[in-house]
Amino acid sequence: MARPTHPKHMSPAEFREAGAAVLDWICRYWESIESYPVVSQVEPGEIRDRLPPRPPEKGESFPDIMRDVERIILPGITHWQSPNFFGYFPANASGPAVLGDLLSSGLGVQGMLWSTSPACTELETHVLDWLVDLLHLPDKFRSSGAGGGVIQDTASSATLCAMLAARERTTGFATNRQGTGRGLTAYASSQAHSSVEKAAGIAGIGRENLRLVAVDDNYAMLPDALERAVAEDLRRGRTPFFVVATVGTTSSTAVDPLRRIGEVCLRYGLWLHVDAAHAGSAAVCPEFRWIHDGLELADSYCVNPHKWLLTNFDCDCFYVADRETLVRTLSVLPEYLRNPATDSGRVIDYRDWQIPLGRRFRALKLWFVIRYYGAEGLREHIRHCVALAQDFARRIEKDGDFALAAPVPLNLVCFYHRAGNDITRLILERVNSTGKAFLTHTTLHDKFVIRLAVGSPWTRAEHIERVWHLTKEAAGDVRSAAGPDRGGDGDTSIS
Amino acid sequence: MARPTHPKHMSPAEFREAGAAVLDWICRYWESIESYPVVSQVEPGEIRDRLPPRPPEKGESFPDIMRDVERIILPGITHWQSPNFFGYFPANASGPAVLGDLLSSGLGVQGMLWSTSPACTELETHVLDWLVDLLHLPDKFRSSGAGGGVIQDTASSATLCAMLAARERTTGFATNRQGTGRGLTAYASSQAHSSVEKAAGIAGIGRENLRLVAVDDNYAMLPDALERAVAEDLRRGRTPFFVVATVGTTSSTAVDPLRRIGEVCLRYGLWLHVDAAHAGSAAVCPEFRWIHDGLELADSYCVNPHKWLLTNFDCDCFYVADRETLVRTLSVLPEYLRNPATDSGRVIDYRDWQIPLGRRFRALKLWFVIRYYGAEGLREHIRHCVALAQDFARRIEKDGDFALAAPVPLNLVCFYHRAGNDITRLILERVNSTGKAFLTHTTLHDKFVIRLAVGSPWTRAEHIERVWHLTKEAAGDVRSAAGPDRGGDGDTSIS
Repeated sequence: MARPTHPKHMSPAEFREAGAAVLDWICRYWESIESYPVVSQVEPGEIRDRLPPRPPEKGESFPDIMRDVERIILPGITHWQSPNFFGYFPANASGPAVLGDLLSSGLGVQGMLWSTSPACTELETHVLDWLVDLLHLPDKFRSSGAGGGVIQDTASSATLCAMLAARERTTGFATNRQGTGRGLTAYASSQAHSSVEKAAGIAGIGRENLRLVAVDDNYAMLPDALERAVAEDLRRGRTPFFVVATVGTTSSTAVDPLRRIGEVCLRYGLWLHVDAAHAGSAAVCPEFRWIHDGLELADSYCVNPHKWLLTNFDCDCFYVADRETLVRTLSVLPEYLRNPATDSGRVIDYRDWQIPLGRRFRALKLWFVIRYYGAEGLREHIRHCVALAQDFARRIEKDGDFALAAPVPLNLVCFYHRAGNDITRLILERVNSTGKAFLTHTTLHDKFVIRLAVGSPWTRAEHIERVWHLTKEAAGDVRSAAGPDRGGDGDTSIS
Repeated sequence: MARPTHPKHMSPAEFREAGAAVLDWICRYWESIESYPVVSQVEPGEIRDRLPPRPPEKGESFPDIMRDVERIILPGITHWQSPNFFGYFPANASGPAVLGDLLSSGLGVQGMLWSTSPACTELETHVLDWLVDLLHLPDKFRSSGAGGGVIQDTASSATLCAMLAARERTTGFATNRQGTGRGLTAYASSQAHSSVEKAAGIAGIGRENLRLVAVDDNYAMLPDALERAVAEDLRRGRTPFFVVATVGTTSSTAVDPLRRIGEVCLRYGLWLHVDAAHAGSAAVCPEFRWIHDGLELADSYCVNPHKWLLTNFDCDCFYVADRETLVRTLSVLPEYLRNPATDSGRVIDYRDWQIPLGRRFRALKLWFVIRYYGAEGLREHIRHCVALAQDFARRIEKDGDFALAAPVPLNLVCFYHRAGNDITRLILERVNSTGKAFLTHTTLHDKFVIRLAVGSPWTRAEHIERVWHLTKEAAGDVRSAAGPDRGGDGDTSIS
C-alpha cells in the first residue's frame, strides 16, 4: 500500500477529493465559458501584481489554491475553448482527450525507450498506424514497412526533425559529425509557416538559405518557380536538399500541389516534407482527401490532432518513410540507457525520433479520442466545422461591403472590407473589443485580412450567426465614425 | 451554456462522471502499485498484439476504454511511480502536480504569446522567479533584470537553446542567417549528458567539434584540462564558444567545479551553460547549496522539477542571464502572430524562448506544487530522499563484498561487487528479475556499476531495507551459481 513518507504529501484519499473539486471546476468552466470575454482584458503585469512576491514557506491548502485559480488566473485567460474563439487555428480539447492526459499524468511513465514502459511506445506506434487508416495516408508511413510515426510536441519540432534528417541524408551523415558547413539550400512557399525559417536557423542551414518560392493567386506554391529556384542554386554551386510543402497554410489554408512539387523533388533528389499541421485532420472525410493528392511522393509528413482533431495540446503526429535515416540522425546511446531490448534491435526507442530525451505517454489521449468518437464521430466533427465556415463564407460573398480574400477549402474564412485595410483593421478591433468573439488577422498580397477559423466542438450555427452580425455592426459603426470622406486605401468598388 | 454540437461529444455531465472514474482508477493504481512487478514483463509486440488492427468506425463507451487500460495497457507499464523504482533518475508525480496539469488540459490555452493568454505567461515568469528564491540562484536569472526563466520540456531542449544562443552571440547572429559554417568548438566533461552531443549535431556544430574534457577521480570536470583544450583549439584556428558544466552527472551525480570552469569561460569569452537537471532541486535545502557555488558566472542554467521536485513531466526550468540574445536567436515574427502587446515591447512572448511555437500552461502544475508543499515541504522531501540514499550507501561501505564506485553527494548510490563486472551485472539482472525493485547501470572508468536513485515520495526506510536484502541475496545466488573458480575480473581484494 502506497503511503506518503511525510504528512506534506497528498494521500490518495486527499487526491480523490481535491481531484473531484478540479473536475467540477472544469465542468463549471466549460458550462459558463460564454459568460467571459473571449480575450482576457488584463494589462501587462496585472496578473503578476496579484501574486505574492515570494514563494510560501509553509504549504497551503488545496481549496486555497483553487480559490486563487478563480480569483487570479481566470481573469488572465483567453478562452481558446470558447465557441466564440475563431482566432489563429483552433486548439481543441475534448472530454476523452483531457481524461487520457490525466491518466498519463497519473501513470507518470517515461517513454524514452521501449523498455522504460513498453505500452507507451507500442500504443503510440499502433495509434499512429490507425491514423494512417483514418486519414488514408500512404502505406509508406506505416510502421510495418520502413517508415513509421511518432508524436512530437508541435509541427515546428516535426519540421526541424525532417530538416535534420534531410540534411544528413544529403551529406551522408557528415554534417552531424563535422558541422553543417555552408551551401545547403531549402525551399518552402512564401506562405509556409514561420517554423521553417526558424528550423533553418537552428539546423545551421541559415535563414538566408531558405528560398521562399512564389505562389499562385490562391496562395499555393508554384512548382515551376520551385524548379527554377532549385536549378538556379545548382548553377551557383549550392546544394538543394529540402522542400516543405504546406497543406493548409496558416494565413489562408492554401494547399500546395503535392504531386507536382513531389515530382520536382524526385527529379533533384530533395527531401519533401509535407506540413499539414492544421488541415490534415480533414482527411478523415473522403470528400477532403484531395488535399493529400501526391502525398505518396513525400519523405515525411505531419498533422496536429491538437489543432482540429479534439486532442488537447500537445500532439503532433510526424511520419517518415525511412525511419532509419531519422534514427541515425538523432541517436546517441550512452551506457546508462543501454538495455537488452534496444540491443536486440526488435523495438522502437522513440527518444531517437525527437529532440528531447524524456517523453510523456501522449498516445493515451489520442487513443481515447479515436475510440470515444470512432471514425464516424471524427468525420462528423470535421464536417460540422467546415459547414459552419462555408456558411460564413457565403454570407461574405453575398454581402456588398465585404469580400473573400482567398478560397475557402475548409474551415478558415479570410475576408476584408472593400473600404480597405484601415477600415478592415478597425472592424476587427471593434469585434474583438466586444468580448463576444475573437478573430485574428493576416496579410495576403499586402491586403489586411480578417481570419475566421471554426474548430471548437461547442461552436454551433447560432455562434456563426452572432459573429456575422457583430461584424456587420462593427462595419457600420466604423464606417459612420470614419465619415463620408474616409474612402479607404483598398478596393475602389465601394457600393 | 456550452452544449455539444452533436451527440458524439462528451457533455460536461458525462465528463464529470468519466473523470471521477479516472481519478478513482489513478488512486487505486497508486494504492496498489507495489503489487505489480516494477518493470513490465511483456515481450516486444505483446501490447500491439492485443490491440485491434484497425481503428473503430463507431465510437465506444468510456467504461469500455477504461477496461482496456486495465487489461491491455497496465501490463505494459513500468512503474516509475513505485517506491521500489530506483532506476535512471526519478520522474516524480505528486497529487497537486497532476491536478495542476489537469486544470491546464481543461483550460486548453495556448501560451505562445503573452496575448494568447496573459496568465499563462505571467504565472510562468513569476513562478520561475520564485524558484530563483527557493534554490538561491543568482539574481541575474530573475526577470526583473536582463535575464529570466522559461519552462522547457526537457534539459535536452534547454541545452540546445543555450547552445544556439551561444552560437549566435559568438558570430554576431551571422550563423542564424548564413548557416553555421565550420570551426566552432564546444566543451563538456566526458560525463556530461548525451544531449550535449545531440545538440552539437542538431545545431550544425558537428559532434566531432564537441570536446569531451577529462574528469578527476570523482568524475568532475578538470578545469585545467578544459583550459588546455580551449587553448589548443585556438592555436588551431578554431572558435571555442560554449561550455556545458554539469551539476549532478547522470552516471554518478558528480558536480563540476563551476567557479573554476566559469573563470576559464570568462577568460576566453565562452558561454557557460550549467546543466543541473536532476541535482539542482537539492538546492531548496541550504546544506546542499554548495552544488551551485560559482553559478553566478554562468550564462544559462537548467533544473528539472519533473525529476526530483514532485512536478510531473514535462517541466524543465531554463534560465538565461541575457534574454535578449536568446530571443533574437529564436524569434521569427510572421504577420499572423503580430499583436499590440508584442509590438509594445512590454511583454514576454515565450515562443521566442523555445524551439516549438505552441506551448501548454505548464506553470500551473509547478505553482500548485510550490504552494501545496511550501518551501518547507520541498526541503523535507529532498532531505528524506538523501537520507535514504545515504543509508543505502553506508550499508555498501560496511559490506565486504560491495564497494562504492563514486562519492554519494545526494540521492544516487553507484556501487559494484568486488568480484568484478560480470558478477555485478548478474546481480543487477537478478534483482530486477524479481520484480520487487528496479535499478539501472552505468560504467565508470570501464567498471560496470549499479545505480540506485532515490526520488519517489512513496519510498520509505523499509523499501531501502528490502532492496538491500534483495541485492545481498542476489549476490549470494550469483556467487554460488558461478562456483568457486569464478573469480571475477575486477577488484582482487575479495574477502
